[in-house]
Amino acid sequence: MSSIKKVVLAYSGGLDTSAIVPWLKENYNCEVVAFVADVGQGAEELEGVEAKAIASGASECHIVDLKDELVADYIYPTLKTGAIYEGTYLLGTSMARPIIAKAQVEVARKVGADALSHGCTGKGNDQVRFESCFAALAPDLKVIAPWREWDLSSRESLLDYLAERNIPCSASATKIYSRDANAWHISHEGGELEDPWCQPSDQVWTWTNSPEQAPNESLLVQLSIKNGEVVAVNGEQMSPFQVLTTLNEIAAPHGIGRVDIVENRLVGMKSRGCYETPGGTVIMAALQAIDELVLDKTSRKWKDTLANEFSHLVYDGRWFTPLKDSILAAAEAFSTLATGEVVLKLYKGQVTAVQKQSENSLYSEDFATFGEDDVYDQSHAEGFIRLFSLSSRISAMNNK
Amino acid sequence: MSSIKKVVLAYSGGLDTSAIVPWLKENYNCEVVAFVADVGQGAEELEGVEAKAIASGASECHIVDLKDELVADYIYPTLKTGAIYEGTYLLGTSMARPIIAKAQVEVARKVGADALSHGCTGKGNDQVRFESCFAALAPDLKVIAPWREWDLSSRESLLDYLAERNIPCSASATKIYSRDANAWHISHEGGELEDPWCQPSDQVWTWTNSPEQAPNESLLVQLSIKNGEVVAVNGEQMSPFQVLTTLNEIAAPHGIGRVDIVENRLVGMKSRGCYETPGGTVIMAALQAIDELVLDKTSRKWKDTLANEFSHLVYDGRWFTPLKDSILAAAEAFSTLATGEVVLKLYKGQVTAVQKQSENSLYSEDFATFGEDDVYDQSHAEGFIRLFSLSSRISAMNNK
Amino acid sequence: MSSIKKVVLAYSGGLDTSAIVPWLKENYNCEVVAFVADVGQGAEELEGVEAKAIASGASECHIVDLKDELVADYIYPTLKTGAIYEGTYLLGTSMARPIIAKAQVEVARKVGADALSHGCTGKGNDQVRFESCFAALAPDLKVIAPWREWDLSSRESLLDYLAERNIPCSASATKIYSRDANAWHISHEGGELEDPWCQPSDQVWTWTNSPEQAPNESLLVQLSIKNGEVVAVNGEQMSPFQVLTTLNEIAAPHGIGRVDIVENRLVGMKSRGCYETPGGTVIMAALQAIDELVLDKTSRKWKDTLANEFSHLVYDGRWFTPLKDSILAAAEAFSTLATGEVVLKLYKGQVTAVQKQSENSLYSEDFATFGEDDVYDQSHAEGFIRLFSLSSRISAMNNK
Amino acid sequence: MSSIKKVVLAYSGGLDTSAIVPWLKENYNCEVVAFVADVGQGAEELEGVEAKAIASGASECHIVDLKDELVADYIYPTLKTGAIYEGTYLLGTSMARPIIAKAQVEVARKVGADALSHGCTGKGNDQVRFESCFAALAPDLKVIAPWREWDLSSRESLLDYLAERNIPCSASATKIYSRDANAWHISHEGGELEDPWCQPSDQVWTWTNSPEQAPNESLLVQLSIKNGEVVAVNGEQMSPFQVLTTLNEIAAPHGIGRVDIVENRLVGMKSRGCYETPGGTVIMAALQAIDELVLDKTSRKWKDTLANEFSHLVYDGRWFTPLKDSILAAAEAFSTLATGEVVLKLYKGQVTAVQKQSENSLYSEDFATFGEDDVYDQSHAEGFIRLFSLSSRISAMNNK
Repeated sequence: MSSIKKVVLAYSGGLDTSAIVPWLKENYNCEVVAFVADVGQGAEELEGVEAKAIASGASECHIVDLKDELVADYIYPTLKTGAIYEGTYLLGTSMARPIIAKAQVEVARKVGADALSHGCTGKGNDQVRFESCFAALAPDLKVIAPWREWDLSSRESLLDYLAERNIPCSASATKIYSRDANAWHISHEGGELEDPWCQPSDQVWTWTNSPEQAPNESLLVQLSIKNGEVVAVNGEQMSPFQVLTTLNEIAAPHGIGRVDIVENRLVGMKSRGCYETPGGTVIMAALQAIDELVLDKTSRKWKDTLANEFSHLVYDGRWFTPLKDSILAAAEAFSTLATGEVVLKLYKGQVTAVQKQSENSLYSEDFATFGEDDVYDQSHAEGFIRLFSLSSRISAMNNK
Repeated sequence: MSSIKKVVLAYSGGLDTSAIVPWLKENYNCEVVAFVADVGQGAEELEGVEAKAIASGASECHIVDLKDELVADYIYPTLKTGAIYEGTYLLGTSMARPIIAKAQVEVARKVGADALSHGCTGKGNDQVRFESCFAALAPDLKVIAPWREWDLSSRESLLDYLAERNIPCSASATKIYSRDANAWHISHEGGELEDPWCQPSDQVWTWTNSPEQAPNESLLVQLSIKNGEVVAVNGEQMSPFQVLTTLNEIAAPHGIGRVDIVENRLVGMKSRGCYETPGGTVIMAALQAIDELVLDKTSRKWKDTLANEFSHLVYDGRWFTPLKDSILAAAEAFSTLATGEVVLKLYKGQVTAVQKQSENSLYSEDFATFGEDDVYDQSHAEGFIRLFSLSSRISAMNNK
Repeated sequence: MSSIKKVVLAYSGGLDTSAIVPWLKENYNCEVVAFVADVGQGAEELEGVEAKAIASGASECHIVDLKDELVADYIYPTLKTGAIYEGTYLLGTSMARPIIAKAQVEVARKVGADALSHGCTGKGNDQVRFESCFAALAPDLKVIAPWREWDLSSRESLLDYLAERNIPCSASATKIYSRDANAWHISHEGGELEDPWCQPSDQVWTWTNSPEQAPNESLLVQLSIKNGEVVAVNGEQMSPFQVLTTLNEIAAPHGIGRVDIVENRLVGMKSRGCYETPGGTVIMAALQAIDELVLDKTSRKWKDTLANEFSHLVYDGRWFTPLKDSILAAAEAFSTLATGEVVLKLYKGQVTAVQKQSENSLYSEDFATFGEDDVYDQSHAEGFIRLFSLSSRISAMNNK
Repeated sequence: MSSIKKVVLAYSGGLDTSAIVPWLKENYNCEVVAFVADVGQGAEELEGVEAKAIASGASECHIVDLKDELVADYIYPTLKTGAIYEGTYLLGTSMARPIIAKAQVEVARKVGADALSHGCTGKGNDQVRFESCFAALAPDLKVIAPWREWDLSSRESLLDYLAERNIPCSASATKIYSRDANAWHISHEGGELEDPWCQPSDQVWTWTNSPEQAPNESLLVQLSIKNGEVVAVNGEQMSPFQVLTTLNEIAAPHGIGRVDIVENRLVGMKSRGCYETPGGTVIMAALQAIDELVLDKTSRKWKDTLANEFSHLVYDGRWFTPLKDSILAAAEAFSTLATGEVVLKLYKGQVTAVQKQSENSLYSEDFATFGEDDVYDQSHAEGFIRLFSLSSRISAMNNK
């Protein structure tokens, strides 16, 4: 093993990273600095995390508040592209990885570390996302991925490992689901979900009501959108982060934003995940409604290409690349048009845009309906059709 | 005006085409043959249509049953590509136009006609779709589009026109919405829908319950899928058309398949439409669920490209083109994998795939979870990541 | 015909626009302002053009020098996307249309005109390009396209028309080829070219030597590239326009940049054109060589998508659209990397990049060759391959 | 090391695989079966190869003639998609890997082997291509890649290794270039090529004359194309393989098909390669010429998307995947149109299609020129333009 002096570990306070602290010290004979990213995973996740890190043997613990930056600089750019992975997944975990990696590198620079470490398993996407970002931001720092090195392959063995070292840990030996949360979403894997023929049980979901439990009355919410970002909820101006948390609170009781999918991992196998993205689902519906008004046909088709491309880029952790800069710049050229108001109805798991308007709207009642107008002469259609279908006509005449 | 002897008119029995029959005879001094396509628009639409056509002055009326062929040869091919227009519209009207045009041309050949006519307005997509198909299938036949020629611009003037000629017509002077139905969907335009800030009233919708009116109990339905087509509902084998009508009946009460969008018309302006596609929405959810199991990551990304491309092709009426053959062939290479079972839950406007399995599934609990296996060695991930991110690393080292 | 007071005509001094001036006055009873765009078509084309315009009956003649702006703001943006239409055509005519249309609108605003006119035929692309730009820049101005209105369908009839009005014109009754030139290229259509089985005769080509006539000695030229633009030729700093004219002079004798293709016109039929783009062909080869060094694999693949999309956009005259802004922004994210030096060999019709270097090069002899290095451990390849091919492996195991 | 009984080695008779035979026996204690793929690399490469293999210690040597199948089933399908990697590379090595892998697996099945081995280095693409194909075709067989395992890192050490074992080898200690040949092309890497600022010396190239050395007289050659395949050269019917070898002989003296590029390897770094593809370059020019005649605009744009996608697929060794089936099916829908005759001029490094015709040509002199015709009414253009640019017009009117 290569010589390491000081490593910055992406630390969560959970079982895995609690064990990684002593394991790094013992196996690399190095100082371990804990780094905790506050990406909106919730107060209970952060409570006492510094004390836990020190108790595990970390020399320092840096808690960095990334909540506003996550929403403003990672989530909204992604939203502007329209990216949805494989038709369904709103990329909640994927979007958080680059900002965490970036902040982790910044801590490493500050404390003069020569290595970075994380608690991702060897079968998942997150190892690739973290380490791809590390490669782009800090190619000189070593990366240690304990899950790919050690032989502690079960929760029991991790608990034993901690007990042997008298490191306190509140984790239980049995944990059914693997979860990951941030301001945008919470994900769930494991347990009965590992069989796609098995429905998720009620205990899977933690943020939202089921549609069945949701209120029998629908709720209307009005979003104000400016340049592709929601700037007010029901007329109240808010920061991007506040918009998201407000909409999470509004939408979760109505059962909005549950998704249950089998997806393709970057590392070649499939996995089944359940996701809850209540506020985000409402935001996406609103942005889609504005796009309906402001994007012309060729722009919309091209934006769908951008969305497809960007969804894989974000999922794959290629954030700090020229490809990201390129697709994002393309999307931002469109989001300058995305300004307007949308009213959405929340009801039993569904969000529906029921009213929409925009100063940049290309919709015009005058043009769409059957009356006469100056812009559109119905006789023009004949010429359009003749030329639009000319190659078909020529081809058909050839085949006679 | 050019000389025409016999014209085949796509006749519906409604006000417009009722007036077109005499208008063609008077203005082109020709025989008019009525052609009625049965694409599953419903028995009441077809009742007495032949008598009406003759009463309007048609020399013959040909009613052609296209229901099975529509579903098998136009809808399923489109479904196999995953095409959804501008993210939302399931292409119900678009898919029906090519088959109607083709059957109309066949009638024209049979009766020795030298022209084709339709009742589409000069501002819509359908005129382009019909005439593009005519160009591909019968470039030698003249096309007459009365709406682009005459000066009968209101319902009142059409009714007057018929009254003057003593042609009976049950149409009323006021008709709020313009609707189009076939086995797959019904569309609604006009009335208050012309203002996108205005919610659709209850009278817009004709096939489905509102989510609020839907039963309080959810319903499970199991679909059997073979090569990308649903072959059985709840274990009962059915033809493609039967599957669709059965699912329409099952899903409509649950409020499934309502869509309310502003879309880009091919002819350059936007329009607002409401669509009801109950059974189709269930079928699409089932096909998407199977795709989750059987398509690998690169295939899925490519299929999303096919879907985007095909959605515009179908919307634009480019059915009888080499481009259609190409994209469809590409999609069919994937649909050979799409075999399996899906259970879907219908509840208050939402359809959710809750169970899914396939003999071609690439999902394997063994590979996805954390235990050891023969196929995947966690240490392989390091090598993967290093090469996957190598260009980022080299670029970052350059920038030092 | 609608009432017009003053029209600005895109005037070239050739036969067509010489006749259009009096035709507009007679048929629209309006004042005609001639507008001449200097896009580098050459001094002989511009000589005496103002006098000719006045002699034809124009009230004023505005000659606007667009040469620098054409190269800087229309040609280089297009080059940055890598756009080549249908694999071969370097878009010379297409790129010039938007800037001419824009300057024509500016003249119209200055002189208070209420209409615009051009001399494009009714079967070509240019009418669509001009009028699409007019629609985007001046939707309030009427557009008059005489070729779609009048019945002067031959050169003879145009000459007669001028002779009857005593308007002097040096044009001859027979002109074999239709040509269009600007700083970037000259195009040739008509004559024997209308048969694709017929080789272009020597008299088609006007700018370049044939490869056979080119010198027997090759010539090396070194280009310095900064952010996707050539800034120096053989070490001498130049403006974008100077670079282009210098390279035209250098490359034309060597027979560089001849192209002979059948292309798809936007209006639905095919046409056969010969193009000469000597300097441009050298510039494109140099930019391609730099891209080889600085773009990673995923970026390069995406840029090829941008190129395909942009080539049709430019060809189709969609310059002043959000789609242009989007694709161009995407391309510019890459062109910030395109800095370096390229030496090209010109020899008998071929240009070959024989030496290339860039400060942003991702090529490294250390990484590419077989020796050990810190960045790449050959054992990593095994892991990469295993995960890269994992879905194939799983699929194959399923099929056992 | 896992237990292996019998391994089939892709054997070339060169230094590397000569050493791999004894190395496998010593390190895996297994029987080694040599497999030699005849992909048209030339008689001298194959001469005495079986004796060499036996002398190295192989128990058997299977020489399999893949020449016809390579051209018919791997090269032509790729050509039909139009794939060219990163704008320049004609994929010569890439296309040969899947067929070699497939034949190697077939030998393994025949002799009952439990492992496969190859001589590819750990930094190249070929290891990924071979092993991805193995994963798809024989996931049960072990793969041994000696270059990723052993410590024989130089030609000297390999020669010493053979000398110690008294295995005869005619290889010299110094070999400047690494080359790979098959019926389609020969590639060259290494030596002075490792510096992109360095021009290839004359000794790099082995198949073609330099343009300077080529005859001063151009040569015309006529190709007959049917369904996307060349079926006759100068009127003489030939098999696909014969066409290719015939054109190699015709084109090589004229300096056709030299390429010198820096490309992105799949494994993340760049490399510089020189390629000679004389006959293939002529074939591609002919197919492109036919496509100009028979593909309409939307089809051509889509085919360019197919080409981009397929070029990476082939380069990356993803041949035996659903993605390949999909893209290839899409391309074959177009190649059914690609029938006709092309005359090409070969002159000093350049191939130019100078005459072309097709029974499926969409080009028509009647439509392209200015005269009247029945198909195209010039007044139709106005309507086309108005609708084509309508969204620009509406947008511009909004912005007033």
